[in-house]
Amino acid sequence: MISGGVGAARLLAGMVQVTDPARIAAVVNVADDTEFHGLLVCPDLDTITYTLAGAVNPDTGWGLAGETWAALGSLRRHAKANGRADIGWFALGDLDLGTHLWRGHRLAEGARLTEVTAEITRTFGLGLRLLPVSDDAIRTKVTTHDGGTLTFQEYFVRAQHDVDVATVRFSGAIEARPTPEATVALRDAAVVVIAPSNPIVSVGPVLAVPGIGEALSLRRESVIAVSPIVGGAALKGPAARLMTNLGEEASVVGVARRYAPFASALIIDTVDADLAGAVAQAGMTPVVAPSIMDTPERAAELARVCLAGAPR
Amino acid sequence: MISGGVGAARLLAGMVQVTDPARIAAVVNVADDTEFHGLLVCPDLDTITYTLAGAVNPDTGWGLAGETWAALGSLRRHAKANGRADIGWFALGDLDLGTHLWRGHRLAEGARLTEVTAEITRTFGLGLRLLPVSDDAIRTKVTTHDGGTLTFQEYFVRAQHDVDVATVRFSGAIEARPTPEATVALRDAAVVVIAPSNPIVSVGPVLAVPGIGEALSLRRESVIAVSPIVGGAALKGPAARLMTNLGEEASVVGVARRYAPFASALIIDTVDADLAGAVAQAGMTPVVAPSIMDTPERAAELARVCLAGAPR
Repeated sequence: MISGGVGAARLLAGMVQVTDPARIAAVVNVADDTEFHGLLVCPDLDTITYTLAGAVNPDTGWGLAGETWAALGSLRRHAKANGRADIGWFALGDLDLGTHLWRGHRLAEGARLTEVTAEITRTFGLGLRLLPVSDDAIRTKVTTHDGGTLTFQEYFVRAQHDVDVATVRFSGAIEARPTPEATVALRDAAVVVIAPSNPIVSVGPVLAVPGIGEALSLRRESVIAVSPIVGGAALKGPAARLMTNLGEEASVVGVARRYAPFASALIIDTVDADLAGAVAQAGMTPVVAPSIMDTPERAAELARVCLAGAPR
Repeated sequence: MISGGVGAARLLAGMVQVTDPARIAAVVNVADDTEFHGLLVCPDLDTITYTLAGAVNPDTGWGLAGETWAALGSLRRHAKANGRADIGWFALGDLDLGTHLWRGHRLAEGARLTEVTAEITRTFGLGLRLLPVSDDAIRTKVTTHDGGTLTFQEYFVRAQHDVDVATVRFSGAIEARPTPEATVALRDAAVVVIAPSNPIVSVGPVLAVPGIGEALSLRRESVIAVSPIVGGAALKGPAARLMTNLGEEASVVGVARRYAPFASALIIDTVDADLAGAVAQAGMTPVVAPSIMDTPERAAELARVCLAGAPR
């Protein structure tokens, strides 16, 4: 799977119900990753881990259930006493911090992010493999219409993605190398699924790593994507607004135009059945199926459709 | 004051009862400081801050009252799942972590440890000045009789100082520069007090910073030390065993021999009154006074004795 965070996590939770987890690998976006106070935070990797472990906060879709916030409260007390409202806005829970401390410790020892991720998934008892697309730093930078430049978390969390975006770039992507593990997984998988994650800021940076987009193009006939846009809107997050900002169509047709070089089929929701012809015209075989994963059963059903692969 | 952690904190808590806190500066040991998981932990600075703020854990004398341990539990879960018993042994509470995150953030921005310490004491509403002796890294290294080398926290916390020590050295001390703030404070103070901290591993590294020991020697007549050894034993910690290991006498006389070049008077407890003559022979004027600070009143009383300065 080519994977972002929340949407990919739900689909993976469906997949582990219908196939052996040991056969599943997710190649995960790292361009949301951000250093906070010296600790590397990897939101997409952690969201998937916590979700599949059944430990995710069900109210938010990220972070941990039963989380406490003592460290953040203490940090914010320092920030307030010293007039620094720019420190402490990112919500790091105490339990979550334990994960970031582990990652920071191991990276400082020289471990690769891929190795550390395997350790974290081991802690949580996951059966599938989570593979950062690269062990190198890739960082999404967003410029807004007023000329400002934001890191991804400044855009997504601090500004609550309530801004109009002029450009999106992935700093470090051109120089980044895909990991051997990700390369092999994408070469050997029977089917590659592009998750219903944000096409621009979640799937985009994965495809931007040299070799990844090309690898999919070469096996395009066995790559199937799931549209994160349903009925012209994103189920969660800023995908639709971002696509519109960047001059793309915020619909399954816009998604098809974007993914056509990499995948041969696009799963679109039943509410978008009338756009199947336009998806085909954009170069992808439409597969109409219920795609809203609001229950585990529906996630499993969508996983089955994905694993059946692209129609011939 | 020349200061370590717990003993110095108690004496400073006495001092702020009997004099204007704005007139007090403590030049604090930094050789216990250790990086854990990418965050700089400064035990002596934080113990003083937490103690003077009335926020210290009264059961331990370090850490914060009402502390929680969620992050550490999470970190240890990762360590256990991945066979790394060497990660997570140092007790970092959630509230305490907030302080270390603040410090890490500010140091990464380029702030000096002296500035960050001032910020942390501001958060806790302290009226006195805590001055790290140096903004440069100084790290105590202990070699044991079996030939191993330990960092200070490995010796003090992990091994619970239950080992015999062959040598103690202060890595980085020779290259370290004292801060301008510490230098000025030690030059301008009416009285300099050497706190009842461990002479070898708390006061020792402060005196080892080039210029600090010399500055005290030059004004030796107005420097008074408080013996941390009472009745041949340390009130807390390994001072007595360390002194014995290093061939010094674990008594007020041993303390006097060590401090004679830097201070003219030594406060010894009433239980050691019979050693006053030997202290004088070792080159320091003995001042016999109750020195066990088991109540705030006794700490205030000892502070008064200190502030009266060395007898002429």
